[in-house]
Amino acid sequence: MRTQVCIIGGGPSGLLLSQILHRAGIDTVVLERRSRAYVLGRIRAGVLESGLTDMLRAAGVGDRLDREGFPHGGTQLAAAGRRFRIDFEKHTGRKVTVYGQTEVTRDLYAARDAMGGVVIHGAEGVAIHGADSEAPFVTWVENGTETRLDCDYIAGCDGFHGVSRPTIPESVRQTFERVYPFGWLGVLSETPPVDHELIYANHPRGFALASMRNEGLSRYYVQVPLEDRVEAWSDDAFWDEFRRRMPQDVAEALVTGPSVEKSIAPLRSFIAEPMRWGRLFLVGDAAHIVPPTGAKGLNLAASDVNYLSNALIAHYAGEGPERLDGYSADALARVWKASRFSWQLTTLLHRFPDQEAFGQRMQEAEIAYLESSDAAQASFSENYVGLPYDRVSG
Amino acid sequence: MRTQVCIIGGGPSGLLLSQILHRAGIDTVVLERRSRAYVLGRIRAGVLESGLTDMLRAAGVGDRLDREGFPHGGTQLAAAGRRFRIDFEKHTGRKVTVYGQTEVTRDLYAARDAMGGVVIHGAEGVAIHGADSEAPFVTWVENGTETRLDCDYIAGCDGFHGVSRPTIPESVRQTFERVYPFGWLGVLSETPPVDHELIYANHPRGFALASMRNEGLSRYYVQVPLEDRVEAWSDDAFWDEFRRRMPQDVAEALVTGPSVEKSIAPLRSFIAEPMRWGRLFLVGDAAHIVPPTGAKGLNLAASDVNYLSNALIAHYAGEGPERLDGYSADALARVWKASRFSWQLTTLLHRFPDQEAFGQRMQEAEIAYLESSDAAQASFSENYVGLPYDRVSG
Repeated sequence: MRTQVCIIGGGPSGLLLSQILHRAGIDTVVLERRSRAYVLGRIRAGVLESGLTDMLRAAGVGDRLDREGFPHGGTQLAAAGRRFRIDFEKHTGRKVTVYGQTEVTRDLYAARDAMGGVVIHGAEGVAIHGADSEAPFVTWVENGTETRLDCDYIAGCDGFHGVSRPTIPESVRQTFERVYPFGWLGVLSETPPVDHELIYANHPRGFALASMRNEGLSRYYVQVPLEDRVEAWSDDAFWDEFRRRMPQDVAEALVTGPSVEKSIAPLRSFIAEPMRWGRLFLVGDAAHIVPPTGAKGLNLAASDVNYLSNALIAHYAGEGPERLDGYSADALARVWKASRFSWQLTTLLHRFPDQEAFGQRMQEAEIAYLESSDAAQASFSENYVGLPYDRVSG
Repeated sequence: MRTQVCIIGGGPSGLLLSQILHRAGIDTVVLERRSRAYVLGRIRAGVLESGLTDMLRAAGVGDRLDREGFPHGGTQLAAAGRRFRIDFEKHTGRKVTVYGQTEVTRDLYAARDAMGGVVIHGAEGVAIHGADSEAPFVTWVENGTETRLDCDYIAGCDGFHGVSRPTIPESVRQTFERVYPFGWLGVLSETPPVDHELIYANHPRGFALASMRNEGLSRYYVQVPLEDRVEAWSDDAFWDEFRRRMPQDVAEALVTGPSVEKSIAPLRSFIAEPMRWGRLFLVGDAAHIVPPTGAKGLNLAASDVNYLSNALIAHYAGEGPERLDGYSADALARVWKASRFSWQLTTLLHRFPDQEAFGQRMQEAEIAYLESSDAAQASFSENYVGLPYDRVSG
């Protein structure tokens, strides 16, 4: 078997890359270890930068997004009992779109099916061979049989625990990491959202976030110690804690109901360099993880897909290897900036074990400054809606 | 003896307050423990916000400042071997002025002398009595004799170690503090500055700053461990370390010479609340200390003088007590914002003992973002030239 680009991982970034390349006449095969039902069962947030929604539309998968997504022209920050709005549209002319990652994945599967895209599920034991040679190939086992796929290039879209990153020898790989000393306890509830926009709240007891999926489905979070077990959090305890951390008018307006999903997620910043080794290119979580504050995870994967798809299309159009050679530098420059924003917003909003009164007041002063400054709101906005897809290479 | 406003402390903030009030027809006495020569012998930096230079001009002490000060329309940041300029003028229409704090103090003494202002030097054992009563008074010992000064109000301009802040009972006082795990080793050298503007450099070995007093007098700094002793730093060792932390073109252009002053200063953030207790008002370092990064110390004292002088003038003009009642809230709102900027710039530029590779790269990403973003440069600029003297009270 042979293809031009072997894509490891059938999540949204692998599927989007496959969709864009296929439309440009480049042959791909997507390998996914899990079943389609499993992939579509993963619950993920979904705040899409305008760069990502533009890519989805250009790739022919924007129809349902445009019908069912919720454009958000701003967001709200709360601290010290007050809240205020930051207007993205005013500062950048752009919005973000609330549309679940699961829905993006579903739309991409439908588009891949419609074009006859090859997505192989149940691919166990995927291994990458000769990534630093002229003739790379990938092997996997499916129903007990080993298959070999020869290809020009390999895109590692297989997430933080996938096989792609460890394929790059440790001698050429550098990793940067921060594990935050807390987690997010999230509750999904079939209740109307307390606000039509997101509310990020700083509070001496810890961070809280009011988020939403649609008009009848709310997603709320509170920061909890890493040691907490989700079983120990009753719905009532969650709602009480959430209300305490929100400004009074939000707490009073909140409609509660039974949780339909409840889980605790750890927070981590992680970046691996380089993102290219020979003919292997890392994309998304395979190379970097951001904490969920600011919702950059999927958007950063899309950013990588943008750089890689453009580079591959330019290469196959005979424009030379420059853009492929520049992929790692281009993608990483934006990854570092988005990671910086995610880290800074996490640092601004959460209660740290060692922060003491000075740290709490510095956070409140930063939020008060943000409330008072057009320039600071413009900077926040351009990061939140997504920095441009600049290139630093050639 | 009786006056309207007793000002404790004959540094720049006490003298400026006295000058402004005197010109408004309000009687003041300034008490200073040290001699004038001692006060004028203190070496301090001098980057003046436009708000402070406006105040000095309005107080009739702007002539020499306008002749001899150096307007700086921007500053430079360096990291990862690169440097770039942030243009304050473009973003705010304002500049800062490099003019030594000692020169400001000298001009203020000359102006006080010319108006016949009362400044009592050698006032030992100053004590504040009845600050929470209708009839406060201050006592001190001068040449062995105790003197008593009755007054309407007391302005505590006597610095971090002065008597004013401890006069406020601990039961009503709250303090917020961070002591940074490093110091600044500063060298004054009779050499032409390496650049006509300041250069703030982030480096994995630690922070460095190229600053200047005038065309023939340079002031350079490097971050050092708190345990370092100034005697252990030869001039050569200083220059070597300074060069290592600056971009190559700066290192190569540097003209070195013997140090005419060399010292190590610790870095601290400190804020005390409230800034008013009864008829006692805290001003400047008596209430708050910022690390020197961003040069906010004198500017923040001037900001307090602005709020207090306006409040006292309004009060004596019969406008009621509202502005005096609002002094603490008004001054503190700006103090917290400037403290936030000083803390953030300190955190961005210095090497922390626990920061590891992730922290270094986050700093570099923040500086790269600053280089790329107009909005971020506008936010930096408005903080650097000084936020407006907004009022949060009434």
